[in-house]
Amino acid sequence: MRVTLVWAMAESAGQKLAQQLKAIVGNNGWISDPTELAPHLTEWRDRVRGNALLMVSPNTVDQVAAVVRACADAEVVVVAQGGNTGMCAGAVPDESGEQVLLNLGRLNRIRQVDPLDYSMVVEAGCILADVQAEAQRNGRLFPLSLGGEGSCQIGGNVSTNAGGINVLRYGTMRDLVLGLEVVLADGSVWNGLKSLRKDTAGYDLKQLFIGSEGTLGVITAATLKLFPRPGEITSAMLAVRTATDAVRLLAEMRERLPDRIQAFELIGERAMCYVLEHIPATRLPFAQHSPWYVLIDLDLAGGVDQLAGLLEPLSDRGLVADAVVAKNNAEREALWRLRHSISEAERHEGGGIKHDISVPVGALHEFLVCAEQSLARQVPVAIPVVFGHVGDGNLHYNVHLPENVPNADRGGLSAQVTESIYQLVKRMGGSISAEHGIGVLKRDALEQFSDPQDLRLMRAVKKALDPQDILNRGKVI
Amino acid sequence: MRVTLVWAMAESAGQKLAQQLKAIVGNNGWISDPTELAPHLTEWRDRVRGNALLMVSPNTVDQVAAVVRACADAEVVVVAQGGNTGMCAGAVPDESGEQVLLNLGRLNRIRQVDPLDYSMVVEAGCILADVQAEAQRNGRLFPLSLGGEGSCQIGGNVSTNAGGINVLRYGTMRDLVLGLEVVLADGSVWNGLKSLRKDTAGYDLKQLFIGSEGTLGVITAATLKLFPRPGEITSAMLAVRTATDAVRLLAEMRERLPDRIQAFELIGERAMCYVLEHIPATRLPFAQHSPWYVLIDLDLAGGVDQLAGLLEPLSDRGLVADAVVAKNNAEREALWRLRHSISEAERHEGGGIKHDISVPVGALHEFLVCAEQSLARQVPVAIPVVFGHVGDGNLHYNVHLPENVPNADRGGLSAQVTESIYQLVKRMGGSISAEHGIGVLKRDALEQFSDPQDLRLMRAVKKALDPQDILNRGKVI
Repeated sequence: MRVTLVWAMAESAGQKLAQQLKAIVGNNGWISDPTELAPHLTEWRDRVRGNALLMVSPNTVDQVAAVVRACADAEVVVVAQGGNTGMCAGAVPDESGEQVLLNLGRLNRIRQVDPLDYSMVVEAGCILADVQAEAQRNGRLFPLSLGGEGSCQIGGNVSTNAGGINVLRYGTMRDLVLGLEVVLADGSVWNGLKSLRKDTAGYDLKQLFIGSEGTLGVITAATLKLFPRPGEITSAMLAVRTATDAVRLLAEMRERLPDRIQAFELIGERAMCYVLEHIPATRLPFAQHSPWYVLIDLDLAGGVDQLAGLLEPLSDRGLVADAVVAKNNAEREALWRLRHSISEAERHEGGGIKHDISVPVGALHEFLVCAEQSLARQVPVAIPVVFGHVGDGNLHYNVHLPENVPNADRGGLSAQVTESIYQLVKRMGGSISAEHGIGVLKRDALEQFSDPQDLRLMRAVKKALDPQDILNRGKVI
Repeated sequence: MRVTLVWAMAESAGQKLAQQLKAIVGNNGWISDPTELAPHLTEWRDRVRGNALLMVSPNTVDQVAAVVRACADAEVVVVAQGGNTGMCAGAVPDESGEQVLLNLGRLNRIRQVDPLDYSMVVEAGCILADVQAEAQRNGRLFPLSLGGEGSCQIGGNVSTNAGGINVLRYGTMRDLVLGLEVVLADGSVWNGLKSLRKDTAGYDLKQLFIGSEGTLGVITAATLKLFPRPGEITSAMLAVRTATDAVRLLAEMRERLPDRIQAFELIGERAMCYVLEHIPATRLPFAQHSPWYVLIDLDLAGGVDQLAGLLEPLSDRGLVADAVVAKNNAEREALWRLRHSISEAERHEGGGIKHDISVPVGALHEFLVCAEQSLARQVPVAIPVVFGHVGDGNLHYNVHLPENVPNADRGGLSAQVTESIYQLVKRMGGSISAEHGIGVLKRDALEQFSDPQDLRLMRAVKKALDPQDILNRGKVI
């Protein structure tokens, strides 16, 4: 009897909050219909499904603040969601149905573009591709670029410190943010929307919110750094014998072309083979296979000729086994198609056990050797399929299991593979999440593979900024 | 009687702690002699004098940890000090004589240099110039460069987020740090000494300590980003009519030379006149005076000819009134001597009321116009002497008062001048401290000109990391 009563009270508290929230955001600002809600309650690979009391989509910062304040008063958790393209389910509410989903998609104004200041101010719900296009229209470049750019949102990019293919030259999202506007856990608005290149007036508070995946505040707008548009990009694919050669190649090319290397991607032989096997209209641009391939984008005044001149001595010294330079845009796209098709090709092979790890750039080769050895010892059937961003020390170290491994064994083996790789990453001072964040999918791994001191500090910061644990509870830490 | 007793107990507690600390750091690790201590108890412009129970100079991280732990147990404040070259007295203990001065100068090993990884690991007490030299010996560049580089230390550079003359191309110290090792307020060691270009595994904790001036932890070592050495630098001085022309010039030059502008300094006419008047062997490199001068350093493959080609169309359009390109190193040094002599020249004029402010780059001109107007209205005798870093929006907006202003009036007028400038900075979304930090000299100004929300957040972070307020109490906030 008592239990029912408490439950009824809880439900009615939830319903009361829902009414309050609907009043805040108005008629077009909320969804409770299960069918309409469904896509917002799971992440795109459908590995996690949640529930929500209600989804609200405020279209002003004041509405966001009022929503968070109402939730804080009711002690109900708020889960902020952008384009919901994240890899670790950081934007999906839990299964309880008691959490409020705060979708930022309608908060999508470009507030200001200032080409002279090389900056722009955009709201959290702006699609990354739209921001790139707006910068372009103003004669500037916003350099963040990643697979989900057609649907991911700036707020999500900031809150996950997004990476992508241009990090080598321009840095991660953290490096591209000049200022932030954030709704705090008590529903107050922190206005840190500055456009300053230098500021030592006290602690740099915006750093707290970048990469904290909505657990310390809800980002509502950002001042972004813009850049000059690069010149024409020259692309080439190089065949190299070892990952060390790739690292040495990058180090030497940086000496000759400081700042002009836009991308420097590594593709392992097996990843290349999967692509050639499964993706139509792809072909290896070399006469024979090589253990590793490097795909580079360069912003060179001298174009193809300058690149050929650069490569010749490196080739003479044996650092480059073979090289092909794209002579036109079609050839360039064909090379990049090989890189961009890896994930799709992997799906044809049943999908791998995915690891988005980073180690010091100088230690990439050692990591690859050790990882292969420890897998060979611990899970001999494992097939590593490796690609990544050399300049960032970031590898997508995916591992496939052969078809003949029974389903019943796959879970256990997967866990063993991941344990083996993360142990190595930890030993080498690396990160178990280079660019995909933690969300809920890697939360336990973060706990297991972090220094206890790290976790203690993170929890102290979380407690200081969100003492009620209202913001994205259960994510990250 | 009772008062005396309590005081005696306090003194004996202090003496007990001093004995403990001496035992931790050993015979060569401490100073209590007043004469030897004196230079460590004041900042270099002698505007603040403090006292200390003892100065300790540990030479291992474990000793630093033990010192902080002992102080935390005794509830005694620890003030970390590097080269003591800061501008805001952030490294000077208070007058009580009860605080412990923790000098990092003996913790000065270069632990590792990895040219392939473009990184090095150095301890807090390493002198900046030594770090630059070590990078150079390894074929790399550590780009931080500032006036005090011959005596300032890396730990201080990190804890104040140092700026300097290469920020436009390479960023501030925050952008140059890959990892940190920090002794926390309870004397435990946080090992965040990673060398990762990408890491989204939880909150980016190192950001907390960068720029927090020793109030959140004592930095003991840092992993620093290295860069390729730049090519030969071409320098030029340009005469321009307005600050807007300088900003437009920078914006257009960035379009043509992305990433290759190493410095882009602004010098106001009066600053130039002071230099020409007081510094021997200087001369204006133009036939006539101009309201503003721009000094640029470029890393150009095409050298002087390429620069001349670049300047011609800008000059035709009237953006550049006059230009002189340095044809050799002697000419280059003569141009830079004009810039570097400004502070010395100002001292000959009795020294100014100094303001190290920043505003959005696009708003520099508006700031200069408004500042001049509001000074003319509020303190008509004020003489602004302005120079700074255009690309960073950072102005050293110093204000002189004429000789005939009586000493009795100077204090009040100074306060009025600063109030007027900081009000404007605040209104324009700028910073009252672009690169000099807060320390103790700007603490009240930070309180006065910050959003209360900023202060609340800073205090919450401080409390989370240093609940006893043991670390550099009374600084920053």
